[in-house]
Amino acid sequence: MTKTNQGNFFEDFSIGQVIRHATPRTVTAGDVALYTSLYGSRFAVQSSDAFAYAAGYSKAPVDDLLVFHIVFGKTVPDISLNAVANLGYAGGRFLSPVYPGDTLSAVSEVIGLKENSNGKTGVVYVRSTGYRSDGTEVLDYVRWVMVRKRDEASPAPDPIVPVLPDAIEADALGDACPILDNGEWDYDLSGSPWRFSDYEVGERIDHVDGMTVEEAEHQIATRLYQNTAKVHFNQHSEGQGRFGRRLIYGGHVISLARALSFNGLSNAFHIAAINGGRHVAPLFAGDTVYAWSGVREKAEIEGRTDVGALRLRTIATKNRPCADHPLTDYDGKYEPEVILDFDYWVLLPR
Amino acid sequence: MTKTNQGNFFEDFSIGQVIRHATPRTVTAGDVALYTSLYGSRFAVQSSDAFAYAAGYSKAPVDDLLVFHIVFGKTVPDISLNAVANLGYAGGRFLSPVYPGDTLSAVSEVIGLKENSNGKTGVVYVRSTGYRSDGTEVLDYVRWVMVRKRDEASPAPDPIVPVLPDAIEADALGDACPILDNGEWDYDLSGSPWRFSDYEVGERIDHVDGMTVEEAEHQIATRLYQNTAKVHFNQHSEGQGRFGRRLIYGGHVISLARALSFNGLSNAFHIAAINGGRHVAPLFAGDTVYAWSGVREKAEIEGRTDVGALRLRTIATKNRPCADHPLTDYDGKYEPEVILDFDYWVLLPR
Amino acid sequence: MTKTNQGNFFEDFSIGQVIRHATPRTVTAGDVALYTSLYGSRFAVQSSDAFAYAAGYSKAPVDDLLVFHIVFGKTVPDISLNAVANLGYAGGRFLSPVYPGDTLSAVSEVIGLKENSNGKTGVVYVRSTGYRSDGTEVLDYVRWVMVRKRDEASPAPDPIVPVLPDAIEADALGDACPILDNGEWDYDLSGSPWRFSDYEVGERIDHVDGMTVEEAEHQIATRLYQNTAKVHFNQHSEGQGRFGRRLIYGGHVISLARALSFNGLSNAFHIAAINGGRHVAPLFAGDTVYAWSGVREKAEIEGRTDVGALRLRTIATKNRPCADHPLTDYDGKYEPEVILDFDYWVLLPR
Repeated sequence: MTKTNQGNFFEDFSIGQVIRHATPRTVTAGDVALYTSLYGSRFAVQSSDAFAYAAGYSKAPVDDLLVFHIVFGKTVPDISLNAVANLGYAGGRFLSPVYPGDTLSAVSEVIGLKENSNGKTGVVYVRSTGYRSDGTEVLDYVRWVMVRKRDEASPAPDPIVPVLPDAIEADALGDACPILDNGEWDYDLSGSPWRFSDYEVGERIDHVDGMTVEEAEHQIATRLYQNTAKVHFNQHSEGQGRFGRRLIYGGHVISLARALSFNGLSNAFHIAAINGGRHVAPLFAGDTVYAWSGVREKAEIEGRTDVGALRLRTIATKNRPCADHPLTDYDGKYEPEVILDFDYWVLLPR
Repeated sequence: MTKTNQGNFFEDFSIGQVIRHATPRTVTAGDVALYTSLYGSRFAVQSSDAFAYAAGYSKAPVDDLLVFHIVFGKTVPDISLNAVANLGYAGGRFLSPVYPGDTLSAVSEVIGLKENSNGKTGVVYVRSTGYRSDGTEVLDYVRWVMVRKRDEASPAPDPIVPVLPDAIEADALGDACPILDNGEWDYDLSGSPWRFSDYEVGERIDHVDGMTVEEAEHQIATRLYQNTAKVHFNQHSEGQGRFGRRLIYGGHVISLARALSFNGLSNAFHIAAINGGRHVAPLFAGDTVYAWSGVREKAEIEGRTDVGALRLRTIATKNRPCADHPLTDYDGKYEPEVILDFDYWVLLPR
Repeated sequence: MTKTNQGNFFEDFSIGQVIRHATPRTVTAGDVALYTSLYGSRFAVQSSDAFAYAAGYSKAPVDDLLVFHIVFGKTVPDISLNAVANLGYAGGRFLSPVYPGDTLSAVSEVIGLKENSNGKTGVVYVRSTGYRSDGTEVLDYVRWVMVRKRDEASPAPDPIVPVLPDAIEADALGDACPILDNGEWDYDLSGSPWRFSDYEVGERIDHVDGMTVEEAEHQIATRLYQNTAKVHFNQHSEGQGRFGRRLIYGGHVISLARALSFNGLSNAFHIAAINGGRHVAPLFAGDTVYAWSGVREKAEIEGRTDVGALRLRTIATKNRPCADHPLTDYDGKYEPEVILDFDYWVLLPR
């Protein structure tokens, strides 16, 4: 029996199966510095202990997406090593702020299985949860991936497809955000005067700036998350693959778009939920990422007068500025430069 | 009204105007490790808590230039987003040692304005100050930049040009350096036996080594400083620009030259002041940086017998070793390989 | 007299000479994060304070190879600046776990000298020791390098060649490993169920994955170790050198192979000793590194029932997967893709 991990195939998953993922990870100030250096994020709460403390945190929390990437990375060897495609996310909630020194682990439960009609692959739905070493949950989300079968002759399981929400309900937001002392929120230091009340549903914001990605950068980022998917790292094999190139981890694009969104959303300091996301097209080293955001919904959170929630749809493109808010063409197909369509809730001071 | 930052134009500045810059930043051991990894600096005081403590610091202070870059980065979105050129620095003083855990912010005051005769641009002089969240100042310096006018028809302000010192006075040096216990200075660990008394005015030192810069490296560095100037990051737009390339942040060159200068100036542990600096020519990825230094002045500091000050002129070149101390040709023009002419004070044990 | 370090030549070394190397270095969480981001290592003990504490450490120790690289880097300016070749390692022992906050220094003693018959170079053997600022030793190892003579006419010293062990004795292992509480070892979190008793002498393990190396990555790594060997950094000079390329630090390959070896050796949490190593061929940016390991010996450690030791031979290749365990051809010559042959002891829970 081989001692190397071959990853799970479609037949290896069963409904209700719980997988405890390897390699717990203590998040440190070193991870935070690397995250800043890879994306250039400038949100004041995550950048300054003093700002965060004045606002109501105990100190600067770790960027929400760094938490997401670390938890996601742990699931890769068990869930998606034999994945053909990462099909979607839903129902992602940030449940508790994470600080340097916290140790994160991840567990996944199989909540859906459906073999594809070709008999070669199937779709696996998992709910993955990130938690601290004391057991408190910090994040959970659903993702579904298309996974190869080990043996095409093996029988199909009874199909079970979970019902997933289009979006997290507003009242379920805010668990990872302390009650803010808005009187202490310094709008010079945070980067703009625009707060919750200044944004309107339907508003579109071009984030203006662009960022070119290098091979070393996405590899350094993806290894930081201990994400082992070989398509990101192995030019020797990928050179003979579908694209002839290493594929950049989709989460890298999400983090780039989020960092660019500071220009126009400086006070949107916290991602409270991930409603859904689609990696529309691949990104490769040498490409330049731009982004724009549309405001889909505004919501108050029951019992909270300190913050309000914006539901955003952030679109990232490659090699195309976003002043004209590129999205779909007349047939409803994505414009060729669109690489990410990301739907999430952010919190802002009211 | 747009929510994205368009940057200030020449007309937006007025004498006496004070701008509090966004995104306070807690400096951490993570930033220090990245700084080491990007430049390979080997000065013992900044590398070792034990060495720094024996010398008189509470622990290893953050590299002076890392402090400079962080403060400088904060000023970019407000001061130089529409700058045509970064014309110069003067009067830079390091006022207090910075340690991991300190939170830095920056404020700038407009101290000079002069419209250019073409009516299209003007020069803006600002004094920028970096300070801790408790209000103590850690750095101040003057820089002047050429900024575009929003509207060429707008009237010129009364020209005011500040009087700037050629160099900081020696007795104003040393605020960021504790009284050293020279008996504890270990010249094996610091890397050479050469102390203040061993250097002579007029001496020229070739720093020998060369360092090739990669795109990923200068981007990682510049994002670490949260410096958003798009010329450093966006190949999609810069590819159609003046150079067809991303331009490397000038401060990256200063840090490379400083790290190279360890070979010949191992005991010059602290930059006490920046008298002036000129980015003579641009640096691009793939180029190799070399450096040499000349000793312009030697000075004792009133009341201090522990350290002395050397006023250095460090010249960095690209793709040319510095054994022959390249600088200017017979007409007084810089040699084509010279990229940096940097005038500053360093402290050494006496 | 020049103030720049020209490095030592063969004539500068004498038997019994002790060299205290420059630049003590406080290891931090920042270094650990960078190490993770450069290699993607996933061993649970080094990744998680909580896992390490449960096992018996006070918190997550620094990766053994990061300690090795830092100590090695310090020796370069004094030992190998004028080296023609790094010939070998032997007798390396890890003596005490290193934690973030520890300050490391290095000292070397010359234990062997032998001039080559060409009269142009000689072999220098040194025992280098890394120690904390409190004097406790954390690592020692022997290496030998071929160094140029300053003057071919200078007389040869009496040849002295130290007797070096083929391998560290099993009972000398384990000093840097606390007594483990094996009941607390969580085999889900550590990544596999395979413990000491599951491995057999003669077993060969393909580590499956490959990792492509970029120029920025190996430069960032090698500077992090404050290793100044110019062949790694200066394309301007190396472009005219033997390979026309920057040569990747051999230690970078060792760390890549170790990180890849997690897949198949997840519970081999600690490198206890380095018996020997040979950099068979050079690695350059753009190449993809693969690795496989063979089990040479199994050993119990006197007085310890918690851990057992495997003596491994890990082979790294470039641009060739290792499913067929490439090593030597019928003439006993290394296959052309083999770049590293590394012999070391690892500890696993029993």
